[in-house]
Amino acid sequence: MTTDWPDIRVEIPPWAAELVARYPGPLDDATAMGVALALARGVMERGEGGPFGAVVVDAAGNLVAPGMNRVLAAGQSWAHAEMVALAVAQRRLGGHDLAVAPGAPLTLVTSGEPCAMCLGAIPWSGVARVVAGAREVDITTTGFDEGDKPAGGLEALTRRGIEIRRDVRRAEAARLLADYAAAGGTLY
Amino acid sequence: MTTDWPDIRVEIPPWAAELVARYPGPLDDATAMGVALALARGVMERGEGGPFGAVVVDAAGNLVAPGMNRVLAAGQSWAHAEMVALAVAQRRLGGHDLAVAPGAPLTLVTSGEPCAMCLGAIPWSGVARVVAGAREVDITTTGFDEGDKPAGGLEALTRRGIEIRRDVRRAEAARLLADYAAAGGTLY
Repeated sequence: MTTDWPDIRVEIPPWAAELVARYPGPLDDATAMGVALALARGVMERGEGGPFGAVVVDAAGNLVAPGMNRVLAAGQSWAHAEMVALAVAQRRLGGHDLAVAPGAPLTLVTSGEPCAMCLGAIPWSGVARVVAGAREVDITTTGFDEGDKPAGGLEALTRRGIEIRRDVRRAEAARLLADYAAAGGTLY
Repeated sequence: MTTDWPDIRVEIPPWAAELVARYPGPLDDATAMGVALALARGVMERGEGGPFGAVVVDAAGNLVAPGMNRVLAAGQSWAHAEMVALAVAQRRLGGHDLAVAPGAPLTLVTSGEPCAMCLGAIPWSGVARVVAGAREVDITTTGFDEGDKPAGGLEALTRRGIEIRRDVRRAEAARLLADYAAAGGTLY
């Protein structure tokens, strides 16, 4: 048995760092969603996996962290766009609870409604607000599995005091998913 | 805005690597649970966070990966024991889908029933079986939040063809949680 275990490691790819640097901010919800969608398209166009992107923004609209699907790229099944954005935000702001981070309250902006795992992760992260583009049905129609969610789905977050806003640039977000499906992108 | 984003990084601490090296295997469920409980106690005794541990074992009972709560230690809210064990297993075996990994089918052995996030993560990971120690009620009695789970909780996994086994060394697992609460351990 080894005693030399590999670190868990997920990196923001250079193309994504360059992409988000083009958005000086402050970002409103629609503009932040534009960044999330550009990240999603970036993953798809590079053949790095499913078209999912996210950003965390602070109360002033500054971009705190980008996130994008890294499941295939990093070989990590948990590395959904939302998880990556939240994890990078926590690394950058120095702690596991974004509720007490500089710039709080923070918002997670995601190109699609979070899956069951990401939905479970959101209350642990300390974000105060979630903004979503594509609806669950747009995602499942593509063939992606959203998992088994609690009653109410995304709405369940409101019972924990987390504000949700749906359908921000939904048509663009849904089109991206349809493009991925039409191109025969891998489903996993 | 920075273009130099921090990597997401979580490491297995040296004490845990030394601990698991003392279990040459192969491990049956009860022995694997013993390793998960020892990892959980290790986190608690070092003041590194909540008493949660997990291991992934292969079809022959070999220990594929250890996991332990790293939320406070790594400053990452997603770094629950189950998530860490699954992620290390995927890093070690080379891909996001443990269903096709060497040694499959794989089992996740966890000191307590997975929270909503971990429950959502399990189907994405490719493990075929989950073995749990403490029940949800043992965990919530301590004061930890398990999140909003789908109807059926852990049982929901069986609808996806994932086998579950509960109550393996439950009394020991529950006692560990009670010890943590009695010592005034941080709840988060």
